[in-house]
Amino acid sequence: MRTTPSSPVGLHRVTEPAGAALPQAARVLDAGPELWPDEVRIDVETLNLDAASFRQLSEKHEGDGAAVRAEVLAIVAERGKMQNPVTGSGGMLIGTVAEVGPESPLGLTAGDRVATLVSLSLTPLTLTDGLERWDGRSERVPAAGTAVLFGRSIAARLPVDLTPDLALMVMDVCGAPALVTRVVADHVARGSAPTVAVLGAAGKSGSLSLAAARAAGAGRTIGVVPFEAEAARLRPTGLADEVVIADARSPLGLSEAVAAAGGPADVTVVCVDVPGCEQPAILATAQGGTIIYFSMATSFSAAALGAEGLAADVTMLVGNGFVPGHADLALDLLRGTPAVRSLFESRLAAEA
Amino acid sequence: MRTTPSSPVGLHRVTEPAGAALPQAARVLDAGPELWPDEVRIDVETLNLDAASFRQLSEKHEGDGAAVRAEVLAIVAERGKMQNPVTGSGGMLIGTVAEVGPESPLGLTAGDRVATLVSLSLTPLTLTDGLERWDGRSERVPAAGTAVLFGRSIAARLPVDLTPDLALMVMDVCGAPALVTRVVADHVARGSAPTVAVLGAAGKSGSLSLAAARAAGAGRTIGVVPFEAEAARLRPTGLADEVVIADARSPLGLSEAVAAAGGPADVTVVCVDVPGCEQPAILATAQGGTIIYFSMATSFSAAALGAEGLAADVTMLVGNGFVPGHADLALDLLRGTPAVRSLFESRLAAEA
Repeated sequence: MRTTPSSPVGLHRVTEPAGAALPQAARVLDAGPELWPDEVRIDVETLNLDAASFRQLSEKHEGDGAAVRAEVLAIVAERGKMQNPVTGSGGMLIGTVAEVGPESPLGLTAGDRVATLVSLSLTPLTLTDGLERWDGRSERVPAAGTAVLFGRSIAARLPVDLTPDLALMVMDVCGAPALVTRVVADHVARGSAPTVAVLGAAGKSGSLSLAAARAAGAGRTIGVVPFEAEAARLRPTGLADEVVIADARSPLGLSEAVAAAGGPADVTVVCVDVPGCEQPAILATAQGGTIIYFSMATSFSAAALGAEGLAADVTMLVGNGFVPGHADLALDLLRGTPAVRSLFESRLAAEA
Repeated sequence: MRTTPSSPVGLHRVTEPAGAALPQAARVLDAGPELWPDEVRIDVETLNLDAASFRQLSEKHEGDGAAVRAEVLAIVAERGKMQNPVTGSGGMLIGTVAEVGPESPLGLTAGDRVATLVSLSLTPLTLTDGLERWDGRSERVPAAGTAVLFGRSIAARLPVDLTPDLALMVMDVCGAPALVTRVVADHVARGSAPTVAVLGAAGKSGSLSLAAARAAGAGRTIGVVPFEAEAARLRPTGLADEVVIADARSPLGLSEAVAAAGGPADVTVVCVDVPGCEQPAILATAQGGTIIYFSMATSFSAAALGAEGLAADVTMLVGNGFVPGHADLALDLLRGTPAVRSLFESRLAAEA
């Protein structure tokens, strides 16, 4: 056990630039397996690379799996974490708790099988198997090595009733239904059962958001999808009262489609990972309503200036991926909503 | 008067990309002075460039005022609006109503002296004087030309008891105190008098935010400024219970300074228009707290991933510049808070 002072956010592991940066912004972390008293060490089983990161690596190496593997190994060896230097993103991991420091506040026990819900881009990581079981052609990376969780971190025990792949897929997007639950419940507490529109409603975070909205008391749910194939997937699930096809980047197209389905929305949830949805979402939302932006393609200034430019009195939330209890809430929604579960399982099957 | 159909949000003025984008997202607007029936034409008197935009231009040209002026002229000539292509932001303007279309719902009359409270980034604008009265070294730009307001827009008549420069300076940032009022009142309604930290507290939006926080029931106000000269300006005003000097870009520096002043904050207001304040603001905010990002330098992904990486249960708001009644609220705060008024007047004097 190391005895120098440690920081709950991991500043003590930052070796370059030392002292100033948080682990996510750091170039290099100390990924040594010896723990500080408030840390937890994980024996790694699987890495799940962030989709944007894997795509960048794969395109850079033109699909050459061996070259992708070599670059991932080189990044981790050099930086002490799996953070793609181009996209800045990481991913998450599954593993087994190997050691728990005596001052760790995370409530984990050696032997627990967990998924880490903080990004790999800030998680100290060493790899010991040369990733020999990975062909470099999939985001899911069988791996051996160790990872470290700081005092202030998030890890969820893997449920025993779901496959790890399914659980991981749910936990990857679990912030969305948790925040939707909070916002819809807040509207309900103010006396109305809100109309909720979800953009990208047939996707992972979108379908969970629809289920969360209904469970939290939404009066009407509107699922927006970009084309008929997605609509055909969403309609039979019954997750949305209305399924409409519209381009979420089209201000008029989106607002007219949502209006025709019973809008404008009191709560609009943006789960579409393309740029340009800020103002369309604002136009589709009622005065006094709330917009939750979950897409990493969201432009802060487009949203801020967009609302002002439309004289729109809307509350706009940055989709924080952390809400206490988010993993359990999402897993329970999956368990309790067969339509969501079958959407996720068909997506898993398609990826396999 | 033009006779083709028009849209209250100005779609009819978008020439590139035609038909798809709203004026704010458009590359080029038709800024021609001939009106559609629901529009208003303004004879321009002064432009007020957004602070982030002016700073970017000034730094790009290393303070060369003539080069800054040339670039502003080029942007307006090319785009039909003053939208900085790097920051995406605009600013606002003062002028006199020249013509009111018969179907305009804004309630304006020819001859009214007004400030437009929608961003220049979406306002059709032509300049006719080459900005010859501007030295390119200040955000306030004496100008001649015409601007157009759409059906759905915001313009405020200039008050008669304040100078136009002072009124404009207040209205330029009036969204901040209005949203701070709403958020603080919401915390108060939930049973606590929140601790409010304002980053950039000696500035325009910062000082008004401090005054708004106190008026709305904040329990303690903390003003954060970057160096002693600003602290010396803020301390005697009494707007903040505590004035602390810290770099808002330093995660540890900021959070420790706010903690020492009685933090963490329940509400953190970011009025510092430099990049990199997202995670520091998160670290300075209590679990369950709210952060309002008013700076156009805010990165959406840095905020979203930053909160997740710190396991921070914080509500993060995109600082919407429009809240109904915002101009009157800010002007009343100025009138009723001599300390705010003197800060604004000394800033005006320094800029003159």
